[in-house]
Amino acid sequence: LPSMQSSGSKPCSCPSFKLREVASMYFTMIAVFLVILVVALQGSAPRGTDFPYKVPLDPQGLLELSWNVSYPEQAVYFQLFIKDLRFGLLFGMSDRGEFENADLAVLWSDGHNSYFGDAWSDAKGQLHMDSQQDYQLLGARRAPEGLYLLFRRVFSTCDPKDYLIEDGTVHLIYGILEKPVHSLQAINISAIHRGLQRVQLLKPNITIPELPSDMKTMEITAPNIVIPSQETTYWCYMAELPDNFPKHHIIMYEPVVTAGNEALVHHMEVFQCAAEFDSFPHYNGPCDSKMKPDRLNYCRHVLAAWAMGAQAFYYPKEAGLAFGGPGSSRYLRLEIHYHNPLVFKGRHDSSGIRLYFTATLRRYDAGIMELGLVYTPVMAIPPGEDAFILTGYCTDKCTQLALPAAGIRIFASQLHTHLAGRKVVTVLSRDGKERQVVNADGHYSPHFQEIRMLKEVVAVFPGDELITTCTYNTKDRSRATVGGFGILEEMCVNYVHYYPQTQLELCKSAVDPGYLHRYFNLVNRFNDEEVCTCPQVSVPQQFFSVPWNTFNRDVLKSLYSFAPISMHCNKSSAVRFPGEWEKQPLPTITKRLQEPVPRCQPTPGPATPVPLNLGELRRD
Amino acid sequence: LPSMQSSGSKPCSCPSFKLREVASMYFTMIAVFLVILVVALQGSAPRGTDFPYKVPLDPQGLLELSWNVSYPEQAVYFQLFIKDLRFGLLFGMSDRGEFENADLAVLWSDGHNSYFGDAWSDAKGQLHMDSQQDYQLLGARRAPEGLYLLFRRVFSTCDPKDYLIEDGTVHLIYGILEKPVHSLQAINISAIHRGLQRVQLLKPNITIPELPSDMKTMEITAPNIVIPSQETTYWCYMAELPDNFPKHHIIMYEPVVTAGNEALVHHMEVFQCAAEFDSFPHYNGPCDSKMKPDRLNYCRHVLAAWAMGAQAFYYPKEAGLAFGGPGSSRYLRLEIHYHNPLVFKGRHDSSGIRLYFTATLRRYDAGIMELGLVYTPVMAIPPGEDAFILTGYCTDKCTQLALPAAGIRIFASQLHTHLAGRKVVTVLSRDGKERQVVNADGHYSPHFQEIRMLKEVVAVFPGDELITTCTYNTKDRSRATVGGFGILEEMCVNYVHYYPQTQLELCKSAVDPGYLHRYFNLVNRFNDEEVCTCPQVSVPQQFFSVPWNTFNRDVLKSLYSFAPISMHCNKSSAVRFPGEWEKQPLPTITKRLQEPVPRCQPTPGPATPVPLNLGELRRD
Repeated sequence: LPSMQSSGSKPCSCPSFKLREVASMYFTMIAVFLVILVVALQGSAPRGTDFPYKVPLDPQGLLELSWNVSYPEQAVYFQLFIKDLRFGLLFGMSDRGEFENADLAVLWSDGHNSYFGDAWSDAKGQLHMDSQQDYQLLGARRAPEGLYLLFRRVFSTCDPKDYLIEDGTVHLIYGILEKPVHSLQAINISAIHRGLQRVQLLKPNITIPELPSDMKTMEITAPNIVIPSQETTYWCYMAELPDNFPKHHIIMYEPVVTAGNEALVHHMEVFQCAAEFDSFPHYNGPCDSKMKPDRLNYCRHVLAAWAMGAQAFYYPKEAGLAFGGPGSSRYLRLEIHYHNPLVFKGRHDSSGIRLYFTATLRRYDAGIMELGLVYTPVMAIPPGEDAFILTGYCTDKCTQLALPAAGIRIFASQLHTHLAGRKVVTVLSRDGKERQVVNADGHYSPHFQEIRMLKEVVAVFPGDELITTCTYNTKDRSRATVGGFGILEEMCVNYVHYYPQTQLELCKSAVDPGYLHRYFNLVNRFNDEEVCTCPQVSVPQQFFSVPWNTFNRDVLKSLYSFAPISMHCNKSSAVRFPGEWEKQPLPTITKRLQEPVPRCQPTPGPATPVPLNLGELRRD
Repeated sequence: LPSMQSSGSKPCSCPSFKLREVASMYFTMIAVFLVILVVALQGSAPRGTDFPYKVPLDPQGLLELSWNVSYPEQAVYFQLFIKDLRFGLLFGMSDRGEFENADLAVLWSDGHNSYFGDAWSDAKGQLHMDSQQDYQLLGARRAPEGLYLLFRRVFSTCDPKDYLIEDGTVHLIYGILEKPVHSLQAINISAIHRGLQRVQLLKPNITIPELPSDMKTMEITAPNIVIPSQETTYWCYMAELPDNFPKHHIIMYEPVVTAGNEALVHHMEVFQCAAEFDSFPHYNGPCDSKMKPDRLNYCRHVLAAWAMGAQAFYYPKEAGLAFGGPGSSRYLRLEIHYHNPLVFKGRHDSSGIRLYFTATLRRYDAGIMELGLVYTPVMAIPPGEDAFILTGYCTDKCTQLALPAAGIRIFASQLHTHLAGRKVVTVLSRDGKERQVVNADGHYSPHFQEIRMLKEVVAVFPGDELITTCTYNTKDRSRATVGGFGILEEMCVNYVHYYPQTQLELCKSAVDPGYLHRYFNLVNRFNDEEVCTCPQVSVPQQFFSVPWNTFNRDVLKSLYSFAPISMHCNKSSAVRFPGEWEKQPLPTITKRLQEPVPRCQPTPGPATPVPLNLGELRRD
């Protein structure tokens, strides 16, 4: 039988007769389905009793999810902690956090009897019981601090109504039932207290490298600030390294979150400032304040980044991120995104990031390289698109020139788009054949940009191609979205972390402007309307005046997948490697990677909801 | 336990100890997996002991497949008869009959021991055991005439290596092992005697309408001809109705196949000749003979069509196909396709079709309507395409004008393309929303064109749209394939059988030629090459001179899904309904039909091959 102990176990004084009741019911059921269950539950208790990953689901911290991933079983073990159980709750997953077409585990009670079941919601948000129960209840435990529910879910069930748990972002949803309900169907999903939380469920199984004995730590944290009572705040705080701080290697870092603020601190980043300025002003305030000195915009080199649900970040044992020493700025900028939807007032916070570093330099400096699209308006997305694709290339010609013969190793990646981004993937191609996914997020959200360790380190050699594809949704927009720096313009970027560091900082592309010009001419000639796409008008203006019928949309797609590109194969954002980089041919792909079809695992056990003895639930 | 009796059971004198041995082994295994099997085998014996559908697999008739479909179980029951078992056989399914990436049931023997297992072949044709055994062996029986293997396969297993059994054509493959093999992996799939057979596995469950007492029959059969000793022959034979034969209704027909020729008679059709000619010459010979009178080309109105594996065809009880009477030709043409790959000589044949007809006319005359694309070169497929899509429309405007207020009922359909056709589907759309698939074949083959009864009768009302989509493969072609009558030109047609008959014979479309002209201009201007697409050149010539880069391919696709269409809403092939039919807008679809995701059923039972006691197998 799986363990019913929770992790981080607070001293437990459970009313033992209830636990016994629950356990006995569970035993009775198991007796019935014993033969079948035995087959499936073999080794189904989580290895170790703990759930290493934890995230608050709601901003008040009433619901907390801990989990563990078993790759051999292709399953996730969940422990859901409910501080104050009313008449049940919903927990589940959906494509982008919506409550329609969602896959839900539901605990509901009519006040006397409680049930746990696997359900799905249709396009109207109506709940239905799944014909197969794939959220497999393993235990329930009442403790003084609240209720613990332990359940298991395989990544891929055989139920077409179920969510497929994949790498990358997973949109978790929750809802709290505040009134008794007599059946699952009676739950009105639009009338309940509910919300969403994004996490990377399938954390990679990383072996933690040995840490040196001379390791030191440094905390870059907010100086006991008051979190503004508004939904969204980006807080900026400037810190600095000691004078004459010599070169060190950052070898790991971890979040420092002020107790009680776990649900408010959404993500944090530490940036190093540009070395060309001798000093930077001290600043401690919102990043969008009029008082913020402009020079802070020159603090953009990422040293560390953390987002909710992430754990400590470890550099591979061969490499560290250089900081300190000559040619490196002493100034650091801490940026914290506070997400405070309930507009709490007067909350103090001293969160930040703890850097672990060593003076015993590792063999290699780690570097960061930017892949994807150049920030230029020639790459645009028509309005009203559901899933428009733009692709940025790092060509064989550039890697041939810029990478060492022994290649580089990519070990982490941070995907980046603006608000229309929905998916990002980078694929490594060699000799025209796609070889390996570098990083992929099919449920990417611009609101959840973590640096993610890769499951597998990716070796890139001279002559390899790195192809980054972003999918955008512009359904709610009425004019074209062009590439650029603005929040309503778009980007398609993958910041890859690798070693050994090279001079190549940027390997990105954009369509050749001459071919785009032919496109605007074609739009003029083919369509009956008269469109002003005269060359003296800016590219965004030309895009804004295109009549977006299906033909003009399709031909733009065709243009992007046919026209030659302008390559940015750069040492820094302004300095290109020597060579001809205009009108370069698009990489040709003769063999695509096969989408791995995950083999589904039907969950054994009852196909009906499980009754739970939680006692009488009270109405306030 | 499922019955081990075969259908049409010939007297059985099985060596009973062997049967007992097999049964005992089977029982031992069942004992082990009893609990699981009990769950799954409930009601798994075919209802009735018979297998109503039957087809020879190989041209010598050594292998014969009978089967039955259980829609409640979503499973097919197969009975494979092997006349002369050597050292095993392969039977399976694949996308288009290839032996690579195929899903196979394999019976193999090392001379002493025999095994039955579910396997798959990779892209190189190498066999591997499936991790789950989804061809579920139900029984094996030695009889004097040969071996019967009985097994079951659900439509959709949970194994991604398995073939999904769908409506429409299924490409069955078989192979005969003539030497002992020591393991599955040792089978060299390219070195064995093998072949393919196309069938519609999922026959619809039609209720047979009551037949009238005055029903008469008429056989239209070949007059004891000698089948030519060549692989492919289309034989033409002219028959005629009696003088002054009054109007009758054909209410069913069935094949008459000369015993022994079951594997050679591939398909047969009876056509009625055009009424405008008073007489037609008698003819009995190959259809492509120089001696065949030209006038036979005017015998194209289908009265009956049968293909291998098909059974009797029944008209719905409200309708019959009119023949005889004034305004109807007395002349009929029988066409038989003989497929004789082993080049047998001197085989006599009197196969044909038996028509069942009645003078008591049913309420409605049945009619045939042609949906899809007009036969014109403006609809073209670039060379080297894997899956190029062309779509033909029957618009709301045409159905509004031509259909009765009470609508029509489509009950059968015959899909038609030339050699590049790979898929055909017709969808019914109402108010811009796709409502129902009329007929779909995702594994369509131009070599297997049956009239198929629909699973569900489709009601079409004035204002509805019928959209027919064909997918073509031109990988092996070096120049564009244009629409037309030639065998290397293409068609996209669905002949739908419906009642009550209307004047609408043809509801088809093609792209507006003016827009195609703009396309050729655009190709000239956008691309750097100089292309001769001057208007004095014919459309096929213009297509043949397009340089087929990805841009020109994509833009042609965009054109076809954007440009207005020319509608043929015709009473007969030359007479249009009154109205404006040029430059019509493409139907807009606001809601697509969801592809039904069939729920997979994991097959219970052992995940390893099953040993079979077939005794020692002999080498010749």
